[in-house]
Amino acid sequence: MHMPIVAHLIAYATKFQEAAVSNVRDAGPGIALYNRTILYECEKLMTLARLEQQLGFLREIDQLKSVVRQSPLLDRSRKENSAEHSWHLAMYALLLNEYAAGPVDTNRVMQMLLLHDIVEIDVGDFPIHGGSSALVQAEQEARAAARLFGMLPQLQGDQFLRLWQEFEEGETEDARFAKALDRFQPLLTNVFTGGGTWTENGVSLEQVFSRYGPVIKKGAPQLWSVCEQWVTRHFSQ
Amino acid sequence: MHMPIVAHLIAYATKFQEAAVSNVRDAGPGIALYNRTILYECEKLMTLARLEQQLGFLREIDQLKSVVRQSPLLDRSRKENSAEHSWHLAMYALLLNEYAAGPVDTNRVMQMLLLHDIVEIDVGDFPIHGGSSALVQAEQEARAAARLFGMLPQLQGDQFLRLWQEFEEGETEDARFAKALDRFQPLLTNVFTGGGTWTENGVSLEQVFSRYGPVIKKGAPQLWSVCEQWVTRHFSQ
Repeated sequence: MHMPIVAHLIAYATKFQEAAVSNVRDAGPGIALYNRTILYECEKLMTLARLEQQLGFLREIDQLKSVVRQSPLLDRSRKENSAEHSWHLAMYALLLNEYAAGPVDTNRVMQMLLLHDIVEIDVGDFPIHGGSSALVQAEQEARAAARLFGMLPQLQGDQFLRLWQEFEEGETEDARFAKALDRFQPLLTNVFTGGGTWTENGVSLEQVFSRYGPVIKKGAPQLWSVCEQWVTRHFSQ
Repeated sequence: MHMPIVAHLIAYATKFQEAAVSNVRDAGPGIALYNRTILYECEKLMTLARLEQQLGFLREIDQLKSVVRQSPLLDRSRKENSAEHSWHLAMYALLLNEYAAGPVDTNRVMQMLLLHDIVEIDVGDFPIHGGSSALVQAEQEARAAARLFGMLPQLQGDQFLRLWQEFEEGETEDARFAKALDRFQPLLTNVFTGGGTWTENGVSLEQVFSRYGPVIKKGAPQLWSVCEQWVTRHFSQ
């Protein structure tokens, strides 16, 4: 079932249900029973249409497993994809919440991190050392978010869209911590793979400090202290 | 830093800290200031050792990205790995919680699903159609869980181990729903890839009903209704 059909079906079932409700109110017992049956069938239909939208979205985001990032796996066997990256970040949030700069709701942070990269299904991964325009990236990602979260039942889609926007804006404590982890994990990977994307892109110590530092420091200052030592040691070797 | 050294360090710092505390209680202001400095240094040392354990675990579980499952991606380009599978399942939980058989804590279900496969780093994936011994599997996985969660600071490790055990036992509402999704996702994949692991393993309609049905039905009966239709249609083609 494709999305326009599902939307049509829901609109149709809603009207049908409204008509049945008004009939139930007006009619005698025989008609009322008949109409209650219609109501019941409508509810089943609406539940199915709703589920179909949710499953459509869950099938669509399978594609995140094919979005390849710049960062390697720690064993350097291949590049990481954005789905497994999102899994790893949720585990980082679950384990490292005590290092957040302020009070955070760990579960919200996990949810943000699970869905923060879904837009890459449409626009790909913008690498931190790629020099792309932040404005162009933001516009493309906003369109992708509208399309993807728009596949869901409306209230649910709006809720996820807001959570994604909160992450992008990075102004709440939850979003700051989530963004700090999203920078911390690839930094750790680079350090523990002997340079990773820094070596590939000829990135200097100063660039590492300026591209990772402010975001990690703002959301997780203790983690940044450790990073400073790692990075300084790495570039002195 | 390796785990035994970290454990040693924590034990040492704890003793040192206890000694400093008792000195602070007994001594004059000069000694007290000196001892408070020691105390402060101890705390920093302990925080660092704790963080080192957590980061060691987060590096270790990077290997889950290299555990290959039987199920394909929906575009059939390759087999799915257990890390991206765990991400997808957490998204299933976030989106489909309204179909749980009973009241569930969605965030706990997500946490369970994020860590339910981590044991596969040591023992690999036991395929549902592989005919392996459930007892042997359970023993091997319990040993893996003890080793892996044992890498974490004790309270945190114990908490995750209990959550993993709760999933394995499958007796709480949260665990039942998590287990239902862990069966539902590969069933959906098989249906939408024209057979997937069923075709590869010569699995019959009856075997699909008996291997997936009870678990999905118990945790998410409405999802099982949809599965019954899919599976019946699939095997009638």
